[in-house]
Amino acid sequence: MALAEVSVLPIGTSSSSVSKYIANCISVLKEYKNLNYKVTSMGTIIEGDLDEILRAIRRIHEEPFNHGVSRVVTAIRIDDRRDKELTMNSKVDSVMAKLKEG
Amino acid sequence: MALAEVSVLPIGTSSSSVSKYIANCISVLKEYKNLNYKVTSMGTIIEGDLDEILRAIRRIHEEPFNHGVSRVVTAIRIDDRRDKELTMNSKVDSVMAKLKEG
Amino acid sequence: MALAEVSVLPIGTSSSSVSKYIANCISVLKEYKNLNYKVTSMGTIIEGDLDEILRAIRRIHEEPFNHGVSRVVTAIRIDDRRDKELTMNSKVDSVMAKLKEG
Amino acid sequence: MALAEVSVLPIGTSSSSVSKYIANCISVLKEYKNLNYKVTSMGTIIEGDLDEILRAIRRIHEEPFNHGVSRVVTAIRIDDRRDKELTMNSKVDSVMAKLKEG
Repeated sequence: MALAEVSVLPIGTSSSSVSKYIANCISVLKEYKNLNYKVTSMGTIIEGDLDEILRAIRRIHEEPFNHGVSRVVTAIRIDDRRDKELTMNSKVDSVMAKLKEG
Repeated sequence: MALAEVSVLPIGTSSSSVSKYIANCISVLKEYKNLNYKVTSMGTIIEGDLDEILRAIRRIHEEPFNHGVSRVVTAIRIDDRRDKELTMNSKVDSVMAKLKEG
Repeated sequence: MALAEVSVLPIGTSSSSVSKYIANCISVLKEYKNLNYKVTSMGTIIEGDLDEILRAIRRIHEEPFNHGVSRVVTAIRIDDRRDKELTMNSKVDSVMAKLKEG
Repeated sequence: MALAEVSVLPIGTSSSSVSKYIANCISVLKEYKNLNYKVTSMGTIIEGDLDEILRAIRRIHEEPFNHGVSRVVTAIRIDDRRDKELTMNSKVDSVMAKLKEG
């Protein structure tokens, strides 16, 4: 299981509000029943099988083009750990536990 | 007010667990009373005055060196909007409202 | 045609030198005859069909695991423009022309 | 000495061509005599003292606002190594040498 964060930016929209495009992108994820995801203010974090995550991201990247945008810049960061199960919760819990220990 | 996401990676640690270094980085933010922040599984999102955010990130980046690491790769993404107040909550709320409209 | 930049970071290597892992990653690209690529000091820029780029990146991301690393963080940025042919050269040339105009 | 890559994206420009804004950003770097930089098709790589790099990036990020843009997303990646001198050339040379060894 891997984690990935994806952030999609439509370029050349006349407005600086792009939330409708982002909402379209996130809608794609509803079809991927084996992926968990979390929307943050800086992107969407996806948890699951890496190949399935990448298929989902490929479709997410296409969404703004489907809605009239002619340029899209998509940033992806993958965190893939194979010696230990990595989940959204386990990563945050691990940092928080260390923070408490001081 | 701007948003920034920061992700710090210590390189050359013998273990693939790096949460103790990340906890040190996040501790720095407690001193910045005018910044709000949120820890996610892929980084830390900071909200506030951009210059203050960058000062905080400069110190965050230094933390792993203070704990014996000799190489650090830090990724930063700034989202800065001047025509409208941008907050962590307003961005997510705006996308979620569009998602509901469908 | 799209452009993508990929940067692979092996985590938990005992040394802070990671160039041998990066060399393995870049070697993968030799098999992709339809992709052009350029190695920079901060990543590798790949030009070509987006689906083929993503297949190559998927294999690049796997390389450090094939050489004993147990955690890999891979950053990808895609620049995809459909109203105009986008190439590594055309992008730099366009900026340089504007720089000269002043 | 550190390396950083910066990529500035103006959001809400009516055109999907943003090279004039990028040219303005790069012009800023001419004033920083102690920094070396290289323009690539995916960003600008800057080499030098980290604090000076961050001051330059702060001004680069401001440039599109000075030219009428109301939202800017700036991505920065810092590679900072303290056990060995890190330069744009040394990093690429090191990878290329490993590639030749095969």
